[in-house]
Amino acid sequence: MTRTFDVAVVGATGSVGEALLQLLEEREFPVATLHLLASGESAGTSLSFRGKSRRVGALESFDFASARLVFFAAAESVTRAHVGAARAAGCAVIDLTAALPSQQAPRLVADANPEQLSALSSPYCVTSPSAPSVAVATVLAVLRPYIEVQRATITACMAVSSRGRKGVTELARQTTELLNARALEPRLFDRQIAFNLLAQVDTPDASGHGVLEKRLAGELKEVLAAPQLRVSATCVQVPVFYGDSISLSLQCRDAVDLERVCAALRTASTLEYVEADDYPTVVGDAVGQDVPYVGRVRGGQDDLAELNLWIASDNVRKGAASNAVQLGELLIKHYL
Amino acid sequence: MTRTFDVAVVGATGSVGEALLQLLEEREFPVATLHLLASGESAGTSLSFRGKSRRVGALESFDFASARLVFFAAAESVTRAHVGAARAAGCAVIDLTAALPSQQAPRLVADANPEQLSALSSPYCVTSPSAPSVAVATVLAVLRPYIEVQRATITACMAVSSRGRKGVTELARQTTELLNARALEPRLFDRQIAFNLLAQVDTPDASGHGVLEKRLAGELKEVLAAPQLRVSATCVQVPVFYGDSISLSLQCRDAVDLERVCAALRTASTLEYVEADDYPTVVGDAVGQDVPYVGRVRGGQDDLAELNLWIASDNVRKGAASNAVQLGELLIKHYL
Repeated sequence: MTRTFDVAVVGATGSVGEALLQLLEEREFPVATLHLLASGESAGTSLSFRGKSRRVGALESFDFASARLVFFAAAESVTRAHVGAARAAGCAVIDLTAALPSQQAPRLVADANPEQLSALSSPYCVTSPSAPSVAVATVLAVLRPYIEVQRATITACMAVSSRGRKGVTELARQTTELLNARALEPRLFDRQIAFNLLAQVDTPDASGHGVLEKRLAGELKEVLAAPQLRVSATCVQVPVFYGDSISLSLQCRDAVDLERVCAALRTASTLEYVEADDYPTVVGDAVGQDVPYVGRVRGGQDDLAELNLWIASDNVRKGAASNAVQLGELLIKHYL
Repeated sequence: MTRTFDVAVVGATGSVGEALLQLLEEREFPVATLHLLASGESAGTSLSFRGKSRRVGALESFDFASARLVFFAAAESVTRAHVGAARAAGCAVIDLTAALPSQQAPRLVADANPEQLSALSSPYCVTSPSAPSVAVATVLAVLRPYIEVQRATITACMAVSSRGRKGVTELARQTTELLNARALEPRLFDRQIAFNLLAQVDTPDASGHGVLEKRLAGELKEVLAAPQLRVSATCVQVPVFYGDSISLSLQCRDAVDLERVCAALRTASTLEYVEADDYPTVVGDAVGQDVPYVGRVRGGQDDLAELNLWIASDNVRKGAASNAVQLGELLIKHYL
């Protein structure tokens, strides 16, 4: 008989929470009781799981002793406020908000560094990295046997859904206002996002690096176990509803064998390779999929050790929910 | 008394042609007679210049002996078909379509390598580089005294107006269809551009590099007189009407003195520097301006010799028309 586990999803009503539910169902995750949790107004609403309507409970009054495995998918501040109680109750934790330092909750990408899971000790606590990190790490893990990457220069063009449902609503609202030639007062974003690109997605530090840009660099080094890897990261908000588009330029130690690289990408089960007569996009390709789409694979114009790629990846599903559920499966397999 | 010159604009009815007319007027270019030229259906229409309506003549029947200076701003194929006649008639030529090789028409950015004009011989013929090249070269020229760039990694997010008025119309049409939940049949672009990013802007060669990506690399090396410069270029079509947004990561020979770099950008007259508490965008900042906007200036997270910048630049006005008119002024000053 299959063992089942009581699972809690914190932030169940958000877009990532919704994708988590969908994936727990699709992948037949061994759920005994599912606790859907949210704070504030969202508690008390209902969501569907396995064909049944389930009430969303109030996070504030939840007793974590009723759960064996907890996904934290609300805001980072919500994780900070409640992760202690979850760990004290002996729950295994999968944090999608990077609220805990690596020492307490290592960054894990199931399709890149699953072996790192073996270093965990109880209470089991892991972090599912940011969406662009998951996409890039998944691709680089496939290429690892063929190239030694010394530097990764990344421009991540991020969908408005990286700001949750509010981002989606705001892009739609702004676009409608502009097409109807009405005056625009931006909300949520600090200026017009419709038909515009915003050069930063959060608040930069004194050196000018944004929070996500620093996460991207740190997470890639950790997940790829490559502390010496150099990472230049630029995160941009683009007028796209779902799906991150990532321009990735790699400098390798040696000349890149493009045929081997393409063959490796073509046969990898963890991504979808798009041949050179086509190219991947978020709309139509990556959105709704559990793997990143990779294309525009080309060497350098003047450097044999350069490799350029374009990645399109569903930021909500692949970048967040799918990796988190895979990590849940691994935790169960190894520890629970 | 100011000398004046008979000027012809080939492709006068296009968006770049229109911007050229505007700039010739605004900058009080010493025009005697202005010949507005177009091929096909556009001939016979009228445009306004210096408050008067001017008829657009048929390019096919134009006698280039009536012009002293010709701007080629239609398609590359149109330049190819007619530039020989213009040169044979002794016209000075400013080509915005890169139809001629560098040996015949060197790439010149007025705010980057004006000194190269001294190497010209009659018939004077110069190329105004692609819009992203003009923007990037203008910025790098300002930084040249302070950093020695060894590699430039560029992701150029290009507005649909890089495809002319048709691109603008198509983005508006697609967006309206989608917001009204109607089925979409893409035109002009090979797939949905509304709320999507297209990973290439033209047809790649056998190595995967697009036409514009190769131009960008070649033009930067030529304009900056840096044949050893390594350039990784990725050109992307984004759902923005006007203005290119460029993510630029530079690797320099030595550690970058960020204070000096920022001071140089702040005082440069050829660009607009946006301080670290803000960032430049195409909508609201760069569009309609004759200089690129530069911001998000930051070093590397793990490399003192790295410099990252974000450039927002009007692709039609700054990237094409403004540089071409500046080149016209230089040609007049030195040769005509």
